Amino acid sequence: MHGAATSPDAGVFAFAAAQVKKAMEATLALGGQGFVFWGGREGYQSLRNTDMAQEMNHQATFMSLAVDHKKEIGFDGVLLVEPKPQEPTKHQYDWDVATSALTLYRHGLQEEYKINVECNHATLSGHTCEHEVELASSLGLWGNLDVNVGDAQTGWDTDQFHMDPKEAAALMRVLLRQGGFPQGGLNFDAKLRRESTDVLDIFYAHIGGMDTMARGLLAAAEALADGRLEAFVAERYRTFAATELGRAIEERRTSFAALEAHALRSPDPVHSLASGQQEKAEIIAAQYQ
Amino acid sequence: MHGAATSPDAGVFAFAAAQVKKAMEATLALGGQGFVFWGGREGYQSLRNTDMAQEMNHQATFMSLAVDHKKEIGFDGVLLVEPKPQEPTKHQYDWDVATSALTLYRHGLQEEYKINVECNHATLSGHTCEHEVELASSLGLWGNLDVNVGDAQTGWDTDQFHMDPKEAAALMRVLLRQGGFPQGGLNFDAKLRRESTDVLDIFYAHIGGMDTMARGLLAAAEALADGRLEAFVAERYRTFAATELGRAIEERRTSFAALEAHALRSPDPVHSLASGQQEKAEIIAAQYQ
Amino acid sequence: MHGAATSPDAGVFAFAAAQVKKAMEATLALGGQGFVFWGGREGYQSLRNTDMAQEMNHQATFMSLAVDHKKEIGFDGVLLVEPKPQEPTKHQYDWDVATSALTLYRHGLQEEYKINVECNHATLSGHTCEHEVELASSLGLWGNLDVNVGDAQTGWDTDQFHMDPKEAAALMRVLLRQGGFPQGGLNFDAKLRRESTDVLDIFYAHIGGMDTMARGLLAAAEALADGRLEAFVAERYRTFAATELGRAIEERRTSFAALEAHALRSPDPVHSLASGQQEKAEIIAAQYQ
Amino acid sequence: MHGAATSPDAGVFAFAAAQVKKAMEATLALGGQGFVFWGGREGYQSLRNTDMAQEMNHQATFMSLAVDHKKEIGFDGVLLVEPKPQEPTKHQYDWDVATSALTLYRHGLQEEYKINVECNHATLSGHTCEHEVELASSLGLWGNLDVNVGDAQTGWDTDQFHMDPKEAAALMRVLLRQGGFPQGGLNFDAKLRRESTDVLDIFYAHIGGMDTMARGLLAAAEALADGRLEAFVAERYRTFAATELGRAIEERRTSFAALEAHALRSPDPVHSLASGQQEKAEIIAAQYQ
Repeated sequence: MHGAATSPDAGVFAFAAAQVKKAMEATLALGGQGFVFWGGREGYQSLRNTDMAQEMNHQATFMSLAVDHKKEIGFDGVLLVEPKPQEPTKHQYDWDVATSALTLYRHGLQEEYKINVECNHATLSGHTCEHEVELASSLGLWGNLDVNVGDAQTGWDTDQFHMDPKEAAALMRVLLRQGGFPQGGLNFDAKLRRESTDVLDIFYAHIGGMDTMARGLLAAAEALADGRLEAFVAERYRTFAATELGRAIEERRTSFAALEAHALRSPDPVHSLASGQQEKAEIIAAQYQ
Repeated sequence: MHGAATSPDAGVFAFAAAQVKKAMEATLALGGQGFVFWGGREGYQSLRNTDMAQEMNHQATFMSLAVDHKKEIGFDGVLLVEPKPQEPTKHQYDWDVATSALTLYRHGLQEEYKINVECNHATLSGHTCEHEVELASSLGLWGNLDVNVGDAQTGWDTDQFHMDPKEAAALMRVLLRQGGFPQGGLNFDAKLRRESTDVLDIFYAHIGGMDTMARGLLAAAEALADGRLEAFVAERYRTFAATELGRAIEERRTSFAALEAHALRSPDPVHSLASGQQEKAEIIAAQYQ
Repeated sequence: MHGAATSPDAGVFAFAAAQVKKAMEATLALGGQGFVFWGGREGYQSLRNTDMAQEMNHQATFMSLAVDHKKEIGFDGVLLVEPKPQEPTKHQYDWDVATSALTLYRHGLQEEYKINVECNHATLSGHTCEHEVELASSLGLWGNLDVNVGDAQTGWDTDQFHMDPKEAAALMRVLLRQGGFPQGGLNFDAKLRRESTDVLDIFYAHIGGMDTMARGLLAAAEALADGRLEAFVAERYRTFAATELGRAIEERRTSFAALEAHALRSPDPVHSLASGQQEKAEIIAAQYQ
Repeated sequence: MHGAATSPDAGVFAFAAAQVKKAMEATLALGGQGFVFWGGREGYQSLRNTDMAQEMNHQATFMSLAVDHKKEIGFDGVLLVEPKPQEPTKHQYDWDVATSALTLYRHGLQEEYKINVECNHATLSGHTCEHEVELASSLGLWGNLDVNVGDAQTGWDTDQFHMDPKEAAALMRVLLRQGGFPQGGLNFDAKLRRESTDVLDIFYAHIGGMDTMARGLLAAAEALADGRLEAFVAERYRTFAATELGRAIEERRTSFAALEAHALRSPDPVHSLASGQQEKAEIIAAQYQ
């Protein structure tokens, strides 16, 4: 309850290490391809009784020791961090993708871990699930997806089966664009509503959840094959690929002085600025659902 | 409106660079000690028309070029990033302290920037202001405080003057513990309520805001001088400072194997686990307000 | 800024009455069929300077005088209240459908007004738009729909065009079941994203918004014609229609004593309780989208 | 799990009635002064499987039968409804004070029930606790207070002991102004943090919670005795008490035509409009804490 890697008691840290060591060895023995660190217990309720800096350092040490052990035993699956913002504690150290990635970069672990995004945790952290997977993918860190959703208006995990084909298409687009998961997949960490008490309900729920993702995958594949939205976005950013100014920025071959010189001899770009055309883009996207 | 450093148009990037260059030079000429990058326009509305990875890279390039220019002109004030989660765009690239720090660490800028926390932006990102300043301070990155608050139940910046002595004491405690700000301070980025139309209201508001922070500073100083809460927290973590096991973890002189060996010869720590005593800590803290 | 009907100044109340009087007369002259009271300015920022009871009474008086005037001039359009929870003030007196309906019932105005639901305001009040229209419809009070949406994760009105066919189908189902609007309709109170600066964008947005509602209408009509979901729900509540116990409750021909007597001679209903089958219902609903 | 008074099964309604009947009789036998209907189970998860209109009617019938039984057995304690917005179900029929009061007014029960406000439920419904008690008190319906608080940034009941003297003073002000509770009081429906495992913690928590309310009561009593804030508010609304125009509105002895005539012969009130002086009011209030 006080955390494992972030417990105020060193003895708990040792017990947690022993448990993770054993679980990782079992994963290796069973041919597992991934090992998820679900950070739900690593956080704090109140700063009145907490030393946050110390707890965050302990967490990083724990994650670093896990990498050592992985190499020691020759486990070549992927280590994954799963962001979770709150509940049971108010503040958790793996709040969202950005917070989890900060810990990785700060401690040189960004090559050793991937991130397992759960859609329900994404919305609890104030982001959409699509934002979280796009960010993780942009960082090269997206490794797995827990396909359970919450409700953007309720503040706790409801862990429902995903039934929204529109969002499914958005998620599958990110996945297709990064070429899939080498060692991850889609994972049902979902549960039935408490009122769903028939034995058949568990079948309905899984069928509905799988169909939703399949429908999303087909829509995303069709949209990508069509290429209209990708071309639309590429066109919007064309000055970075198609002009010397843009390429110099992309390759960091410039300076504020050079950019000022360019600005002084150019018309104010506000006059030629293209529309974002968000509504048009949304209409195009809607045609694949 | 499409962002400055993260605009899809390279020409806007150049104009933004020219503006920041000039503003930084004016700051130097005027003897300024700090320069804040308020990220409120660097973000996106919809991934249907946005290339997030490219925009984030452009932002980092911009921040890096700013450091070059600062050194070029000999400005020795502090560069500050101000997290702001949303409004006008839904998703902004400096969502909170952790997200802003991720950009710094990912691009090797963590020694070049500090973070300017605004309490209203803190609550909009789903955190308390105290959490954000404690996190920034733990990372060695807290450089300034915008003392304007919102309302934890409204989802836009209300930028009210700070009138809560309890939170003020919590913020001032973090500031005193880190030894103050070398080159920053407390900044009123607050405004009157729209209905406050008397000329006197602007005086009342500033007096109220300053008195609140002063009341918080006195309470925090008294609490720190007293030392009861600090001792309470230190005692809670004593096993890390006072045992060989704890010191080995602190100094990263251990391994999962060594920790497992320790765990196997120790009683389950759950049986000796101390209470978090949050309510007691809250009562102690309340005595200084 | 201090409110119109709920201003602390009686003179403002009089001016507001004069304006609404004139606007209502113009509506009559122009053949208008409805008159909306948008309550966005009727609320308060802080109870430190507010007499809430007095302000709520003034609002009811104003609404009652408006009914008098409507009858006086022979305007036979519908008067509508539009719930809006916050922004510009923190607390508004027409927070949601239930709060608006409370004012109507408390002051005997429930036959004189209908409710105009705006989807963006619905989500800002913590409800789904579907909940709000279902509640208004259940009360016999749903009179119009503002088809602009926000984002369940942002706390201010974004007033976007509706682009989600799944929600559109849910809204149209409620509308079809209540037999449409005698004197209302669907109203675009939406605006383009600020970055949508092409003249064409306004066309794209309206086309997209209309198509979404049309797609929803077709889906809802097909689902209702099919009848599977309606039959599913009716079956779930069959004991109220099909048993003497249920009919006695429906018609309020019973008492706690009679119900206790029934319970004492019956098996515990928990043993025969049917599953809610929410996931199955969601799968069926998804087949019409 | 499907609700009691709002279950889709009439047999459950009967069992619930039997249980409440027995509990009410036990309350009478034990000399109890109040009986609370905690609506946490009366709600729904999804409209796909729910008939909201029918469920709301069943709830009203249940509440009405409870009044009959109360009179039948001669119980003269107070019946209380406790608003609770969500968890376990997404939408509950007693969302907040306004929603609960709507049910009472709609079914003529407003003289038969009072409302028990719980501060944690207040914040979960999007309001402050002070707003909820002020609204209930304005309606003449405030009957009891559950003094447990949550966190405005977490979306589930944390049921913490109240430790904020500033809010306590605001709540006690409303209570003192309505002359206390004839048959209610302050109730600790709070629990320790899960990590508070010492036997002493339960004492600390209750002492802290009681002291907070006592500190709030003293502050509120001092402020009311002083009268500065009350005079400030009365002055702000003086035109309603001190002018013939205002009294005519208060007593509903006017019409849009009469108000228009007044407006036409008056200067635009915007030119003489007094400031809301919220910041000054906040400073005055802060002097009593």
